[in-house]
Amino acid sequence: MEKSKLPHTDSNATWIWYPGDFEIWLSNKMQVRRTEREAVFPPLWRYYSPYPLVTFQTEVDLPEEDDVKIHSEGPFQLLIDDVQIYGQPKSIKISAGKHKISFKVYNQEVLPAIYIDGKYVKSNASWNVTNEDKLWIDEEGKAQQSGTPWVPVGSWNFDEPEAKPSEFQLATEPWEAKSTEKTEGGELIDFGKETFGYIKLHGLKGKGKLTLYYGESREEALSTDKCETLDNLYFDGSQSETYILDNSKAFRYVQVQKDASVEYDSISMLYEYLPLEYRGSFKSSDDLLNQIWDVSAYTMHLTTREFFIDGIKRDRWIWAGDAYQSYLMNYYLFFDSPSVERTIAALRGKEPVTAHINIIMDYSLYWFIGIYDYYLYTGDTKFIKTYYPRMKTLMDYCLGRRNENGFLEPLEGDWVFIDWADGLPKTGEVSFEQLLLAKSLEAMAVSAKIAGEIEDEKGYEQLAADLKAKLFDVFWDEDNQVMKHQRIGGEIQDIVTRYANMFGIFFDYFNEAQKQSVKDKVLLNDDILEITTPYMRFYELEALCAMGEQAFVLGEIRDYWGGMLDLGATSFWEKYDPKQKGTEHLEMYGRPYGKSLCHAWGASPIYLFGRYYLGVEPTAPGYSEYTVKPNLGGLEWIEGQVPTPNGTVELYINTSEIKVKASEGEGTLIFNSETQPSTNHGTVSACGENKYQLTIKPNTEYAIKYKAL
Amino acid sequence: MEKSKLPHTDSNATWIWYPGDFEIWLSNKMQVRRTEREAVFPPLWRYYSPYPLVTFQTEVDLPEEDDVKIHSEGPFQLLIDDVQIYGQPKSIKISAGKHKISFKVYNQEVLPAIYIDGKYVKSNASWNVTNEDKLWIDEEGKAQQSGTPWVPVGSWNFDEPEAKPSEFQLATEPWEAKSTEKTEGGELIDFGKETFGYIKLHGLKGKGKLTLYYGESREEALSTDKCETLDNLYFDGSQSETYILDNSKAFRYVQVQKDASVEYDSISMLYEYLPLEYRGSFKSSDDLLNQIWDVSAYTMHLTTREFFIDGIKRDRWIWAGDAYQSYLMNYYLFFDSPSVERTIAALRGKEPVTAHINIIMDYSLYWFIGIYDYYLYTGDTKFIKTYYPRMKTLMDYCLGRRNENGFLEPLEGDWVFIDWADGLPKTGEVSFEQLLLAKSLEAMAVSAKIAGEIEDEKGYEQLAADLKAKLFDVFWDEDNQVMKHQRIGGEIQDIVTRYANMFGIFFDYFNEAQKQSVKDKVLLNDDILEITTPYMRFYELEALCAMGEQAFVLGEIRDYWGGMLDLGATSFWEKYDPKQKGTEHLEMYGRPYGKSLCHAWGASPIYLFGRYYLGVEPTAPGYSEYTVKPNLGGLEWIEGQVPTPNGTVELYINTSEIKVKASEGEGTLIFNSETQPSTNHGTVSACGENKYQLTIKPNTEYAIKYKAL
Repeated sequence: MEKSKLPHTDSNATWIWYPGDFEIWLSNKMQVRRTEREAVFPPLWRYYSPYPLVTFQTEVDLPEEDDVKIHSEGPFQLLIDDVQIYGQPKSIKISAGKHKISFKVYNQEVLPAIYIDGKYVKSNASWNVTNEDKLWIDEEGKAQQSGTPWVPVGSWNFDEPEAKPSEFQLATEPWEAKSTEKTEGGELIDFGKETFGYIKLHGLKGKGKLTLYYGESREEALSTDKCETLDNLYFDGSQSETYILDNSKAFRYVQVQKDASVEYDSISMLYEYLPLEYRGSFKSSDDLLNQIWDVSAYTMHLTTREFFIDGIKRDRWIWAGDAYQSYLMNYYLFFDSPSVERTIAALRGKEPVTAHINIIMDYSLYWFIGIYDYYLYTGDTKFIKTYYPRMKTLMDYCLGRRNENGFLEPLEGDWVFIDWADGLPKTGEVSFEQLLLAKSLEAMAVSAKIAGEIEDEKGYEQLAADLKAKLFDVFWDEDNQVMKHQRIGGEIQDIVTRYANMFGIFFDYFNEAQKQSVKDKVLLNDDILEITTPYMRFYELEALCAMGEQAFVLGEIRDYWGGMLDLGATSFWEKYDPKQKGTEHLEMYGRPYGKSLCHAWGASPIYLFGRYYLGVEPTAPGYSEYTVKPNLGGLEWIEGQVPTPNGTVELYINTSEIKVKASEGEGTLIFNSETQPSTNHGTVSACGENKYQLTIKPNTEYAIKYKAL
Repeated sequence: MEKSKLPHTDSNATWIWYPGDFEIWLSNKMQVRRTEREAVFPPLWRYYSPYPLVTFQTEVDLPEEDDVKIHSEGPFQLLIDDVQIYGQPKSIKISAGKHKISFKVYNQEVLPAIYIDGKYVKSNASWNVTNEDKLWIDEEGKAQQSGTPWVPVGSWNFDEPEAKPSEFQLATEPWEAKSTEKTEGGELIDFGKETFGYIKLHGLKGKGKLTLYYGESREEALSTDKCETLDNLYFDGSQSETYILDNSKAFRYVQVQKDASVEYDSISMLYEYLPLEYRGSFKSSDDLLNQIWDVSAYTMHLTTREFFIDGIKRDRWIWAGDAYQSYLMNYYLFFDSPSVERTIAALRGKEPVTAHINIIMDYSLYWFIGIYDYYLYTGDTKFIKTYYPRMKTLMDYCLGRRNENGFLEPLEGDWVFIDWADGLPKTGEVSFEQLLLAKSLEAMAVSAKIAGEIEDEKGYEQLAADLKAKLFDVFWDEDNQVMKHQRIGGEIQDIVTRYANMFGIFFDYFNEAQKQSVKDKVLLNDDILEITTPYMRFYELEALCAMGEQAFVLGEIRDYWGGMLDLGATSFWEKYDPKQKGTEHLEMYGRPYGKSLCHAWGASPIYLFGRYYLGVEPTAPGYSEYTVKPNLGGLEWIEGQVPTPNGTVELYINTSEIKVKASEGEGTLIFNSETQPSTNHGTVSACGENKYQLTIKPNTEYAIKYKAL
C-alpha cells in the first residue's frame, strides 16, 4: 500500500468508496427507471452489486494532534494502529506521529462510503480500500494480516459531508410550457422541444384519477393506448397544491386526462440535467450546419446524465457501443472525464465475467477501445491502473470464446449486433468482429504497459499481430481489394459490407492503396447494403472524412441530419430513413411510437466537425502532442474550440487565413495551400505537394496567411 | 428448463428467490450484528451480495383460466409468453392452455423474491430462476433468447404472502429474571442460565442515560470497563413505559446503571430462538452424562439460529470448521436440514472465489466434507445439483493453490488454523491439510456423479487417489507407524501431532494395524501436544470411540464437560483448560472476558452419544441403509432416539437386552455378546468372535436378549 502524501491541508476531503461501486449502484438504479406503460423494464444483462463490506485505510504522519470528523454511509468499525476504537464516534482525536487508520464499513442497501475530515487526515483519492481485509486476531489478541488486495479508492465530486453518494441527484430547473391546446379527453401541453424531467402540477385540488400521456411526438402524446410512457395518478384530496412527480420522463408533449373531480391550474416541468460546461464549439458559414451542431449538442446533453445513455425515452440504459460514440463526442463538447469513467465502470461491473457487455460481442470490444481512447484524449493512467485487472478478466472471457481458428464466432448467449440493418448476416466468423478484437488487443497491450505488466504487454501485442495477419489472410479479397464480410464453416461468403471496410480505414489497418480501393468499391458504392442508423453513419462518415471527403460528407450531413430537422426534430433520432413518410418515422420494434427521438448516437456531427473539420486530434496521451488538420469541406469559414484536458484549441479558418491558439501541449498544424503560407509566429515548413506544417506552442495566437486549394 | 409438473393444486405457494441469495443477505445482516462495546465488528472475510436483478420462470398447462395473485419484493416486469404485461398488477388472469410465465424482479436493498398464488400457478421449488435472462427484442419486436443459465429457485418456509423473506425474524418468548441484587452503581439481574435475547424494561420513566452491562459471567457484568458488550441508552422522556431493546445480546447476567432521573420497575427479557424440535434424545444410568447431554443440547440450540454460528456473545459469525461440527451434532439432535443448507450456502457465497472460506485453508475443506455428510445423512441430491458449480469453483481455487509437489501449503492470505494450541506448527506442508483435501476430493467425486458430471467424477477420483498415495509416501513414518505433522522445504519435521492421526482413523484412511499404532503412540500418548479446545476434543474423542474406547471416552467426557459443569457452566465453552483457576477461565484473546461461554463446538457429546454409544450411523444416503452398533461404555443402560430424514431409530440398551425400533430404511444391528443372543423378530446371525448382527426392518419393535462382554 502506498502511503498517502501528507500533510495536504490544502486539499479537500471527499466521499470515497470502492472503485466502481458507486457507478454500479447508480447504474442499477438508473437503468430500472425505464418504464413501458408503467411496467418496469429492466436491462436484459446481469446486474452486479457494490461490495457490502469494505475497509478503507490510510497511513499518516501527523505533525500535531488532529481532531477528525467522521461521516459514514453505514455502521463502521474504526481501528487505529490495528486497535479497535469502541462505539460509533462522530469525531476522534488522533495523536501526533505515524498511524494506520482503518474504517471497515457495512452497507448492504446502498454502498459503503466515508467522508473523513480533519486538519491533516482527510478522505481522498490517496486512500486505499479492500473488500477482503483478512485482518484476524490470534489467540493472544495479536492482529494478523496478509494477502489483502488493496486498491485505490473511487471518488467523484461529493466534497461536502452532507452530499452523500446515496443521495445523488441530477440538477433540475423549472421550465414553462410553450403552448396548451384542448384535446378530446383533456389537454395537450407542448414544451416546445424534446426534454427530460418531472411534470409539475400547479393548483391541484380534489380527489380522483389524473393520467399523463407522454409523447416525444404530438401523435404519441395523443395516443392514449399506444404512447410508450404514461403515469396514472390517484389523488385522495390530501395532496399538496403543487405536486411534482417522483419519476422523470422524456417528452416534448404531455396530454392530461382526468376525472372531473380533480382540478389543476397549470402544468410546468422540472428539467433534469447533469451540470456540464460546453467547452467545445463549432460555427460555420452554413446556418443549417450550425443548427445541426446545436441540436447535436442538445441531444448529447440530454443523453449525458448519470451515465452516457442511449435514448432518454427508452432504453435509458448504458450500451457500450452507443456509449463509445458518446465518449468521442464528449471529447469535442464537454470533455467531461468523470462521465467517461463512470460509464466505463458501470458497463464493466465486476467479477466474474459470465457474458459479453450488454451480452453483445461487439460491445465488449468497443469497451476496450473506449479505454484506449480515454487514455489518448485525457492522458489519465490512474483509471487504467485501477481497472486493468477487470480489463484482463473481460479479455480472458473474450479470448476464451474464440473458435478453433482463433476467430470470434457467436456461441450460445452471444448477440452479434453490428447494426440494425435488414438482412445483415451475423453468423459464423464475421470480419468486423475480428477487426474489433484486434484493436482491443492493441488497447490491452498499451494498458498492460501502463499497469506495469510487461509480460502481458508482449502477449497482447503478439496476439494482436497474429490476429491482424489472419484477418487479412482470410477476409481480404486480393482480387477485388475489399474486405469480405463473413466466413461460415471455412467457406468465405460472397458478401461485402461497409462495416469492416470503414473501420479498417480509420483504424489505419489498410495501406493507402487498400484505402482508396475500399473507398471507391465500398463506401461510395450504392450496391453495398445501405446504412440507415445514425449509429453506423457515424463511422461511415468518419471513414469518408479520414479519406479527405469532407465536402461530400457535408452534403450527407445536410441531407441526413437536415432531413430530421426538416421533419421538426428538436433532438436527433435513433434511426432515420429518408424514404419513410409521416408517422412511419415514429415506428420501431413493431410499435407505432417505439422509436427514440433523442438518441445519443444521433449527435455524431459534434465529433465529425471537431475532429475532421476543425481537424483537432491528440497524437500523444492527454494532448501532450496533437495535430490540427483543418478542412473547410467547401465552406467559406469555420471556427470553434476543441477542449483539451486543461484548456482548449481555438481555431478560425477561411480560405485565406488560419488562426490557432492552444493552451497546452505541442501541436502540429498541417494544411494545404496553393501558395507559400506566412505566419506571425514560428516557421511554416513545406512537406511537398502543397502541404505545409507549423508547430503550435501553447498560449500563442498564430495567424497564418495561405490560399486554400 | 424443466417444465413444472402441473397441476399441483394441493401444494402451497411459497416465496422463492435465487438459490443462496436469501442466505447471503441474511448472513451479511446477522454477522455484522456482532458488537464489541458498541463498536460494530464485521467479519474479516469478503461479503457477497444477492443478485439485485433476477428472472423467475415457469411453464404451465392450465386446464382452465387461473386467477393469480402476485406478491413481489421489488418492482417487477411480467411477461406471459414473452409479451410484457403493462403496469405492476396485483393479480392477473391467465387463460387455459400452455404458457410461459416470467417475472423479472429488481431489488437492490434486500433481494428479489416473489410469491405467486393461483389455483394452478403457484411459486414453489419447481420454478427456475436466472440472473441473466439475455432476452432481447430485435428490431421487429421479436424476442430472442439463448445461453440463459437457468437454475432451480431457492425457498424455505415462507409460505404466506405476508411472511416476506426481507422481514425474517427468529421467534421470541418472554423470560423472567431469576434474581436481582444491588451493586455499587446499580443492580445486577441474573437470568439463571446463559441466554440470548432482548432486554425489556418495565415501568420506564424519566429522562437520562441508562447503561446495560452484559455478562456471560457475574464477573463480566460487574466489570463496567471490561465487559465485552454493553448498551448505552438515552431517554428523552418520550419513550414508552415498556421498552424493548432493538438488538439482541448473549448473557446470563445484566448490570443496570442509570442516572437518578431515569426510573424503571423491573427488567425481563425476550428469549430469541429458532423454533426446532428436539428429535434426538439420550439418557443413561449416569446423571452427570445426562446433564452433559442436556447442557450440550441447550448450547446447540443457542448456537443454531439464522445459521449455525460459533458463539453467541462473539463472534456470532459462521465459521466452516465450527459449523461442520454443528451439522454432525444436528443430525443427532434436530435433524434440521434447512439449517444445514442455509449455513453451507451462506459460507460459500457465490463467484468469484478469491479466498478460502473464512480465509482458512482447512475451513474450505470442511465445507466439502460437510456437503458429503449432508448427502449421506439426508439423501438429498437437489442441494448438490444446485450447488455443484459453486463446489467446483471452490475446488478449482483450492487445487490452484497447491505447491509444485501437489500439496497445499499456505500462500499469502491463507490462514492455516487447525486448532488453537500453543506452539502448533502451521507452516509448510502440513499433513492434516492434505488429508482434508483428499477427503474433499472424494466428496467432489460423489457430488460430480450426482450432478451428472461423469468426467469430473473420474478426474476427482484420480486426484483423490493420487493425493492419498502421496500423503502416505511423504508423511507416514514406516519406522514409527505414525503420521508425521509437517514437511518444510522438502525436509520432514520430527513432529507428530494428533490432528492427521485422529482424522486418519475415522476417515478410515489407516488399516487396522496403523490404527492400533496411532491409538497407542499418539492418541493415548501424553507426550504428544495436548488438545485443549472442545473443537479438537470432538475429533480426538471420536477417534477413540471409533477404536472402541467408549469406556475411556466416558471418563474424559465426565472430566472435561463435567469440569465445566462443576465450575457452574450452563452452556459449554469455547475452550476449557482444567489447569486454569477462577477468573482465568473467562480470559481469551488477551481480554479478561474474551472467552465465549456458549460455543457450538462445546456441544459435541450430542454427536458422540448418538453416533458411538447409541451407535447409529447411515451407511447409504438418507438412512436407506444404516448400522446400529450400541456401546454401553461401561454404563448400566442407555436409551435414546436418533432422528432419520422421516423418522427415528429408538434404542434401549442394557447389559442383557437391546431394544430397537426404526421408522424407515434397512438397519443392521451389530453387537457383541458372550452368549448366543435371541430376538423376538428376524434372525440373529453370528459373525465370529462374539460378534452378531440382525437386520432391522422399519416399524418393528425388536427386543434382543444377549450378554454384554
